[in-house]
Amino acid sequence: MAKRKSPDARTRQAKPATAGKPAAPAKAAGKPDLDEVRAQIDGLDRQIQQLIVERAQWAHQVGKAKGKLAAAVDYYRPEREAQVLRRVVDRNEGPLGDETLVRLFREIMSACLAQQEPLKIGFLGPEGTFSQQAVHKHFGHSAKGLPLASIEEVFQEVAARNADFGVVPVENSGQGTIQSTLDMFLTSPLMICGEVELRVHQHLLSRTGRIEDIERVYSHPMSLAQCGGWLRQNLPKAEKIPVSSNAEAARRARNSDDAAAIAGETAAHVYGLKTIAGPIEDRSDNTTRFLVLGRELFPPSGHDRTSLLVFIRDRPGALYGVLEPLARRGISMNRIESRPAHGGLWQYAFFIDVAGHVHESPLRDALAEVGESAGDVRVLGSYPVAVL
Amino acid sequence: MAKRKSPDARTRQAKPATAGKPAAPAKAAGKPDLDEVRAQIDGLDRQIQQLIVERAQWAHQVGKAKGKLAAAVDYYRPEREAQVLRRVVDRNEGPLGDETLVRLFREIMSACLAQQEPLKIGFLGPEGTFSQQAVHKHFGHSAKGLPLASIEEVFQEVAARNADFGVVPVENSGQGTIQSTLDMFLTSPLMICGEVELRVHQHLLSRTGRIEDIERVYSHPMSLAQCGGWLRQNLPKAEKIPVSSNAEAARRARNSDDAAAIAGETAAHVYGLKTIAGPIEDRSDNTTRFLVLGRELFPPSGHDRTSLLVFIRDRPGALYGVLEPLARRGISMNRIESRPAHGGLWQYAFFIDVAGHVHESPLRDALAEVGESAGDVRVLGSYPVAVL
Repeated sequence: MAKRKSPDARTRQAKPATAGKPAAPAKAAGKPDLDEVRAQIDGLDRQIQQLIVERAQWAHQVGKAKGKLAAAVDYYRPEREAQVLRRVVDRNEGPLGDETLVRLFREIMSACLAQQEPLKIGFLGPEGTFSQQAVHKHFGHSAKGLPLASIEEVFQEVAARNADFGVVPVENSGQGTIQSTLDMFLTSPLMICGEVELRVHQHLLSRTGRIEDIERVYSHPMSLAQCGGWLRQNLPKAEKIPVSSNAEAARRARNSDDAAAIAGETAAHVYGLKTIAGPIEDRSDNTTRFLVLGRELFPPSGHDRTSLLVFIRDRPGALYGVLEPLARRGISMNRIESRPAHGGLWQYAFFIDVAGHVHESPLRDALAEVGESAGDVRVLGSYPVAVL
Repeated sequence: MAKRKSPDARTRQAKPATAGKPAAPAKAAGKPDLDEVRAQIDGLDRQIQQLIVERAQWAHQVGKAKGKLAAAVDYYRPEREAQVLRRVVDRNEGPLGDETLVRLFREIMSACLAQQEPLKIGFLGPEGTFSQQAVHKHFGHSAKGLPLASIEEVFQEVAARNADFGVVPVENSGQGTIQSTLDMFLTSPLMICGEVELRVHQHLLSRTGRIEDIERVYSHPMSLAQCGGWLRQNLPKAEKIPVSSNAEAARRARNSDDAAAIAGETAAHVYGLKTIAGPIEDRSDNTTRFLVLGRELFPPSGHDRTSLLVFIRDRPGALYGVLEPLARRGISMNRIESRPAHGGLWQYAFFIDVAGHVHESPLRDALAEVGESAGDVRVLGSYPVAVL
């Protein structure tokens, strides 16, 4: 690796310029030679390709290490992928963003994994949905997406082994939990083996595309709240009118020149509106969260989350019996959500997300203790916390 | 680069096994150690990341080399990208496919280019269309896609500089030329600066998903023809019924258990059908071709195509005057298509695709000669032939 020249190494490491390196770009003179730069890039590309090919050959060895030459599903390891991506982020000092590098490495891993039979991933279709974006974000473009007609069907196809994994939406930072997804776990034997977070961006849309025309802004109350700072700064006098959905907002904005809607960019196309500005949400963490469904529990990745489904008979005492062993050990809880348990012995079901992996302390000890209490605890999965 | 170990180098180059290399995988023993393989992959990842970062830094220099720190559109060079990708294919000896490696390098280039302001690419929306797939295939996922309501709007937004480039479908190996796209060039000043080819796959879909139930197969005649070999082999007794479109075929297949449709996979979702088999087209080159629209003519890439728009007054003699100088120089013609010229001095318009670049012989000489004949020739663009 000694022969390559890094154009910014000097700047980054604040070393003095070294004379006598004829191929270094004429950066001091302010204007590097284009042919020289391109030759450097060509050299790097050759090396990158060689390394990716070697990586693919080693990945092939992993397949063999597992015994017979396996299909991708047999040696796909989510905990290992999460570790690789975290290392990529830890190493990154720019100029490329973490998200860009993580995307490139996901694609490289996806390609290496797909050498025999690619992973088949069921998702709520049709193609072009956020769910498909989540599939590509998590599994890369070498995985094969299977668009399915319903969330139920995604569960069914994974259980029937027609899909290796499934990807289903479970909550949106705007609209809250998608109950129908959670309820599937009441009867499904599938495990959660990953999560994907997808940023969702808000845009200000109108018929004319000119901000000076706008006197009213329609949107879902949650979206209005998400963009409150931007609106105060850029449209302080406009009336904010909450409506039932962002799609409804776009429909209304279509009817007059002085109205705008806050909605996703796709709505601009569907409703023939122009984008005035975007993204305009005050916090960039406006996300939809997806779960990756599989059939097995994978080992710890070092930074994991565990989803529990807890059935209890009578609420106050039993729930305390479940939560206390967790709280006492300082295990942080990301979410708790109660659902009717749909008959049987138990009256209430709670979906609880906690930090940690069931195979590791302190969660393992806490769950052993919970098992002795008045509840019935099912581990829905322990999986790596989403890497970007 | 001397310290890395290639797991298959021995096999590929048929060298004898070298003793005394402790870190080499225990391949001779048939079962490499998983931890060792993963350590190798981690080392490769570290190097790949370092090289990609260096590449990004050099790409940054290209931006500077052009003068002030430029937006991506100012230093995007399609001919250069095509050359890089062709070298990737030329170097490739497996195990990854050409298509996979080309995709990875497109993403790497896309990420390097998007460091300042990403390219904005207009396409016929909504998201999830084949056009969007073509945008990602050609420009990578670091470019920003702008879904637009019509092909006309794609032309308009590129001309108005709201989009840096546009991507529009121009022909389908099944349905032929998309005339409305070609006709836009009769009045638009835009240039063609690239082409994208996207494979389109056919699937056999039915309500039950069982091939033994099928007695009739509906599809567009072109699709039936494309899958003739597969049908003869797998459904020799089934009746083949041509209908107006593949969507219509899917609608009909929905009505009875003994009917199937040949259609794209998305139709399975939309019409609630199951996939019996796919892809089932006899030739894997069933493609849709897209044009990349820009505002300038780029230099030759070494393997280019030129699109010409030729206006002539009277058909037989004048067309000959245009074609003869091309034919005499052995310039191959990929396509010729006549269109009414919509009034004015000229009566006929011909869209002609020929091999070569207008800045290079023999095409340059041929066009100089054509210019003296009875026609009026407009160069719509010279651009790299699609790399995979």
